[in-house]
Amino acid sequence: MARAPTGESSIARAARIIAAFTAGETSLTVTEIARRTGLHIATASRLIAELTTHGLLARGPVREVRVGVRLWELAARASPTTSLRDAAMPYLEDLHAVVGHHAQLSVLDGDDVLFVERLSARDAVINYSQIAGRLPVHLSSSGHVLLAYAPAEARERVLRRPMRRSTAATITTPDGLERAWAAVRRQGYALLPGHVHEDATGIAVPVRDALNDVVAALSIIVPNDDHAHAGIPALLAAARGVTRTLSGRR
Amino acid sequence: MARAPTGESSIARAARIIAAFTAGETSLTVTEIARRTGLHIATASRLIAELTTHGLLARGPVREVRVGVRLWELAARASPTTSLRDAAMPYLEDLHAVVGHHAQLSVLDGDDVLFVERLSARDAVINYSQIAGRLPVHLSSSGHVLLAYAPAEARERVLRRPMRRSTAATITTPDGLERAWAAVRRQGYALLPGHVHEDATGIAVPVRDALNDVVAALSIIVPNDDHAHAGIPALLAAARGVTRTLSGRR
Repeated sequence: MARAPTGESSIARAARIIAAFTAGETSLTVTEIARRTGLHIATASRLIAELTTHGLLARGPVREVRVGVRLWELAARASPTTSLRDAAMPYLEDLHAVVGHHAQLSVLDGDDVLFVERLSARDAVINYSQIAGRLPVHLSSSGHVLLAYAPAEARERVLRRPMRRSTAATITTPDGLERAWAAVRRQGYALLPGHVHEDATGIAVPVRDALNDVVAALSIIVPNDDHAHAGIPALLAAARGVTRTLSGRR
Repeated sequence: MARAPTGESSIARAARIIAAFTAGETSLTVTEIARRTGLHIATASRLIAELTTHGLLARGPVREVRVGVRLWELAARASPTTSLRDAAMPYLEDLHAVVGHHAQLSVLDGDDVLFVERLSARDAVINYSQIAGRLPVHLSSSGHVLLAYAPAEARERVLRRPMRRSTAATITTPDGLERAWAAVRRQGYALLPGHVHEDATGIAVPVRDALNDVVAALSIIVPNDDHAHAGIPALLAAARGVTRTLSGRR
């Protein structure tokens, strides 16, 4: 991997170090961090030591490097995702109790759906997303909802990107996607049977704020069978509840 | 407020900028950030611009500064609190459904209890803690549990600190705290009626990992009445479930 560009700031390097950790790799050695970020090992060591001083990183029992609990705290307590999540949580729990499987809250971030909360049954149908996990917008029901109500520029950008196929049902053409968005705007929900995984159906509805702007998607993952539609009224009702809470009306 | 010490690194300054945001103040002006951090406004502006480039901060509709969704994502996906929370979530939901009110997961961080997850009923008894919120360890049932099983140095440090009183029932003496810890180790739980708020009882139990070390506390907040004890068996059972999941045994 290339060395860091000369003159790159410490903040840029620190951001790359923190981004080296993933959901599957929550602890890394200094050597591995240097390799992933393209930094000299001495530079990586010095920055890791400094980030550790401030609690943004932490060292584990065998000196492995981890994301610091303090970083999580700083990010979580003031993140815009936290107030959204707090407003949505009681409704997500109700949804999860009634329709089982997965209940999820997501926002649009760049060209991806970012999942900010997920409640999962222990015996749920399969699902690719996780907390702070991402999916491309063309793939998931949440992405269809978020894009259907997004500014035209965001939709144009997605239409120009290559669209990865996940199953035979995945929509991968600009025409198909535009038809799907029109259907969302007409129906008020997205229902995608088997688009991410053959055995699962994703259903998503928009969550609006006090100004009636779509700020998030509420979604459930249910088995891909004839009963999937039954979850739609509960989802629509839950989304109204979240909007009410976000608007300060109880 | 004092100006930043000369020679302080960009990372130290960036950490202070991010720490300027709180749960109650999720958006700040550049001027306010400069005031809170003691940085010159030009320095604060430059660092904020750079943190924004990397998505660690974001600018809102009227140019106000916020914590970036990207920072939350990086911190949440790889934080040790996330794997703990994922293991605990199904049990927290069950607890919340059965005992109502609040169900919480917390860890010891420094001399505080840090709440990493909370599920709340819409009509719950009062509660001071929030997600990524903190309480002093002497005050809350979770703090009593986490300290009862912590290394002796951690307990000694707490005994030397001043202990703030919250209600007439709050334990604020070293003797009282040592007796409370001994009771936790004997009984396997902490039950504190009216210690944080007169109308609420906190009940907490330890969560152990595969090595039998106490890594977290599971707690509920219920009304301060004669029925409070009824929640203890459900809590103890839930804690065993979390340990089983953490140990990879289902």
